[in-house]
Amino acid sequence: MAQTKAGVQTRGRLVQVAAELFAQRGYHATGMAELGEAAQLGRGALYHHIGSKEQLLFDVCSRHVMDMVAYGEQVLAETGPVIPRLRGLSRRLLSAIAENRAEVTVFFREVNSLTGQRREQLLAARDRFEQIWQELLDLGVASGELRCGGPMLVKGLLGMHNYSYLWLRPDGPQRPEDVADLLLDAMLWGIASEQADGALSETRRLH
Amino acid sequence: MAQTKAGVQTRGRLVQVAAELFAQRGYHATGMAELGEAAQLGRGALYHHIGSKEQLLFDVCSRHVMDMVAYGEQVLAETGPVIPRLRGLSRRLLSAIAENRAEVTVFFREVNSLTGQRREQLLAARDRFEQIWQELLDLGVASGELRCGGPMLVKGLLGMHNYSYLWLRPDGPQRPEDVADLLLDAMLWGIASEQADGALSETRRLH
Repeated sequence: MAQTKAGVQTRGRLVQVAAELFAQRGYHATGMAELGEAAQLGRGALYHHIGSKEQLLFDVCSRHVMDMVAYGEQVLAETGPVIPRLRGLSRRLLSAIAENRAEVTVFFREVNSLTGQRREQLLAARDRFEQIWQELLDLGVASGELRCGGPMLVKGLLGMHNYSYLWLRPDGPQRPEDVADLLLDAMLWGIASEQADGALSETRRLH
Repeated sequence: MAQTKAGVQTRGRLVQVAAELFAQRGYHATGMAELGEAAQLGRGALYHHIGSKEQLLFDVCSRHVMDMVAYGEQVLAETGPVIPRLRGLSRRLLSAIAENRAEVTVFFREVNSLTGQRREQLLAARDRFEQIWQELLDLGVASGELRCGGPMLVKGLLGMHNYSYLWLRPDGPQRPEDVADLLLDAMLWGIASEQADGALSETRRLH
């Protein structure tokens, strides 16, 4: 039992070490020898704990997306106004990205280095997360809270959030939740002034 | 003269082939032998045309970002209302991403695989492009067209646009320029309905 607990801890440490190395150097450029060295494990122990380098990549990539899907399903199952639920999802996504930057970086850069079932499973989770946003927007349109939804808007919203893996820090000048509010509010209420209200159709005519 | 022209063509073809291979397999996982095979060039000819694999990565990554900075400087130098200029930049960015997906993919994934001056140069260009958006937003706030600007909003706008390298196709169901309008309009005029107008401060109180 004590050994199992130690095994779980070693595995968790390995995933953390691998996330950092894969994020810094890339998955293909990181060798098992380096992983063993960074985790202070010999070759035998390394394979005992992870099975294969690809399994380790899967472990690094899967936690963030699986957590986000689980949280998203919860938000979707709630009732009540949609905008606060969107806000909850937005805040959770940005804090998760800020807290797990190495894992998230590896997920975005290397998910296509996975093969077979592992790849299918993570791409399905990513699609499901996108679908959850889509369903929330649909609910908001149905309730009259939102003027519009649709897959392109979901892509735009996700891009706005996900891209933050490149710059968001848990200890940055603004809390991730405040950054989430700033971005989501911009998308909800717009950044154009009332004075510019007429410019929408006008600029469309100009181009 | 004819030979120089052929050299330029060979180099252009090599950059295209390298962009596809680096985008599919990753920079580190792609060997010079594969590049030579895909471009139908021997080892000697390959090195003659590119110098090094890193130079090839630089050539793949640099065109998109340099073009976008040049276009952005032009937009910034224009006078007149800011919103149409933002729209022009947004449309140009999405069509460039749709048309150069392999290059853009390699830029986003591999720019940090570059070293020294090459890396500095491209990161400086990326920063300048962000700065151009920032200056445009500042101009919009000064002219009264926009309610707000700031670096986080710029990050959000760029994320919304740049993330499209993962899904935007030049021959997709919507033209890249129309996708740009949809995304930028959402950000300018907001997606919340008037009915939901009061929810901003309300949801803030709730969390």
